[in-house]
Amino acid sequence: MTAQTADSPFLRACRRQPVPHVPVWYMRQAGRSLPEYRATRAGTAMLDACQDPELVTEITLQPVRRYGVDAAILFSDIVVPLRAAGVDVEIRPGVGPVIGRPVRSRGDVARIGDLEPPDVEFAAAAVRMLVAELGGTPLIGFAGGPFTLACYLVEGGPSKTFERTRALLYSDPGLWDALMGKLAAITAMFLRVQVDAGASAVQLFDSWAGVLAAEDYRRGVLPYTRRVFGALAGPAVPRIHFGVGTGELLGLMSEAGVEVVGVDWRVPLDEAARRVAPGVALQGNLDPAALLAPWPAVERRAREVLELGRTAEGHVFNLGHGVLPETDPDTLARLTDLVHSVPAGPGGMAR
Amino acid sequence: MTAQTADSPFLRACRRQPVPHVPVWYMRQAGRSLPEYRATRAGTAMLDACQDPELVTEITLQPVRRYGVDAAILFSDIVVPLRAAGVDVEIRPGVGPVIGRPVRSRGDVARIGDLEPPDVEFAAAAVRMLVAELGGTPLIGFAGGPFTLACYLVEGGPSKTFERTRALLYSDPGLWDALMGKLAAITAMFLRVQVDAGASAVQLFDSWAGVLAAEDYRRGVLPYTRRVFGALAGPAVPRIHFGVGTGELLGLMSEAGVEVVGVDWRVPLDEAARRVAPGVALQGNLDPAALLAPWPAVERRAREVLELGRTAEGHVFNLGHGVLPETDPDTLARLTDLVHSVPAGPGGMAR
Repeated sequence: MTAQTADSPFLRACRRQPVPHVPVWYMRQAGRSLPEYRATRAGTAMLDACQDPELVTEITLQPVRRYGVDAAILFSDIVVPLRAAGVDVEIRPGVGPVIGRPVRSRGDVARIGDLEPPDVEFAAAAVRMLVAELGGTPLIGFAGGPFTLACYLVEGGPSKTFERTRALLYSDPGLWDALMGKLAAITAMFLRVQVDAGASAVQLFDSWAGVLAAEDYRRGVLPYTRRVFGALAGPAVPRIHFGVGTGELLGLMSEAGVEVVGVDWRVPLDEAARRVAPGVALQGNLDPAALLAPWPAVERRAREVLELGRTAEGHVFNLGHGVLPETDPDTLARLTDLVHSVPAGPGGMAR
Repeated sequence: MTAQTADSPFLRACRRQPVPHVPVWYMRQAGRSLPEYRATRAGTAMLDACQDPELVTEITLQPVRRYGVDAAILFSDIVVPLRAAGVDVEIRPGVGPVIGRPVRSRGDVARIGDLEPPDVEFAAAAVRMLVAELGGTPLIGFAGGPFTLACYLVEGGPSKTFERTRALLYSDPGLWDALMGKLAAITAMFLRVQVDAGASAVQLFDSWAGVLAAEDYRRGVLPYTRRVFGALAGPAVPRIHFGVGTGELLGLMSEAGVEVVGVDWRVPLDEAARRVAPGVALQGNLDPAALLAPWPAVERRAREVLELGRTAEGHVFNLGHGVLPETDPDTLARLTDLVHSVPAGPGGMAR
């Protein structure tokens, strides 16, 4: 990592150090809302694009060029490491991930392969190309959380609230442990490869963890997430942990071995700051739906987020979930400029 | 209302009076999971069934006959009063409600008619028939909350998180007020008709309120919900208020003028009891996904719910959301017997 990258506002905020301005990036900043993305992706299936280092590099860079955000995040999909481990999975447009053979038994778990570095060399190659291109802008590694992977594997297809997955967690601790153990190992390896190739932070998207009550999360998810983050300790990169609708879980998520917790739009950042463990920074949390409103409403709400973010030990501005496909890129450009124009809080550096 | 109905465990629990056993009913107890329902509904579109008093009566009674639950709830759908008010809406199987002309402007709001009692005479007729059939078992009136109705009207079709609705709430207070005011009036009238016809309680399903942060809920939803519940004060029937994923909102929801707050499965009832206003009973909250697990897991989790329910001022056992279509009716029968077999808590009557 260059000294310039190490001293970037994004990495400083993750380490809870003073910053000249609050750093900002957006979940799903690369992708559906950008015309240049739609042009680049045209004719290529989602998972094929994710395994093409040149395409991944181009798509990952697009929002950095357009918005001047403070971090890039590797363009990928939550099921990419599953496919690399041999799982029969495809992403059907308008539907989402569909699994050829949903997990119902120990045999199904055993059939999922281990993930070895050569299986995800495409990701390592993309990270190396990106680090060379990005200069002082940090690259965030990407992976889905073990629970969210389990949701896709167990349901087999689209679901709103993942009932079969919850039923499995409630009823078969042995099978659950076998499945989650394997998924934690796959996830840890996928992130390890990205860090070894030069990613300077990671974000674990346990997108659907919010469907669980805290006690079930504590018992059935947290131990496996801890394994993932534990495997990344050492040559330390900041570890960010995010899920949707996780108001009840923020405290537990902050205890998984992380530097930053991402917050969805439902919990104000001052309240989130009270819920997470001491020494954990926050990321978030403007409602992505707010970006569909006229600019005065966007600005008002963004300023509220910045104001409440001052109560956190460190704050990375982001949305409370991914950029919606119908978002006008000009709104995100204007929002980025706004965040950069607001002086950082009391801990900020006078430069 | 007969003396037997007034003294039923369900109504006593809603009033926070001692009960011989915790009363139990299930959201969506009538419907998709029952073979007799599928036989009765065969060949009839959902909204047509909801407007047929004989069909509504039969479908509403089916789970009472099968399970011996402590309350019936009028078989209906959230969009029924919208259709009765002249909105072009249909329910597409496998999709959900689809609105012919989504609400985008004041003109669209003005085009929604008012609801007059004759428009929902089918519901009054069904309630009268049901009260005659049910004997001492109370009937709960049914309506969707104004916010949830707004979600369907604004999105126009299926959505997971109702971004357009949130954007409208954030950006156009005047249009929002016009829309929510009209929906509150329609909802209040729909429930008023059911109460006047003999329903002995009501439940307002503001199913999707949980997509909002508390401050937006307080400003954009609570005033209208208060109007609905306020219109039902007087010859008092217990008012139950439920939404999914509303952990952050339970306190506000309990201040809307209600006797009971329904809790989804994510927040344990002892924690919910701390969040609601004094003098409010709780309803809930076994995870409906638990019913897909083998019986020992169902029983363990049901007993936990009953145990935590003792910390509430009154407890009506229910699921944390509707019965899933794939639920085995025999599991619900066994669960009902279990709840009835457990002696009520310290406030219970020794009989």
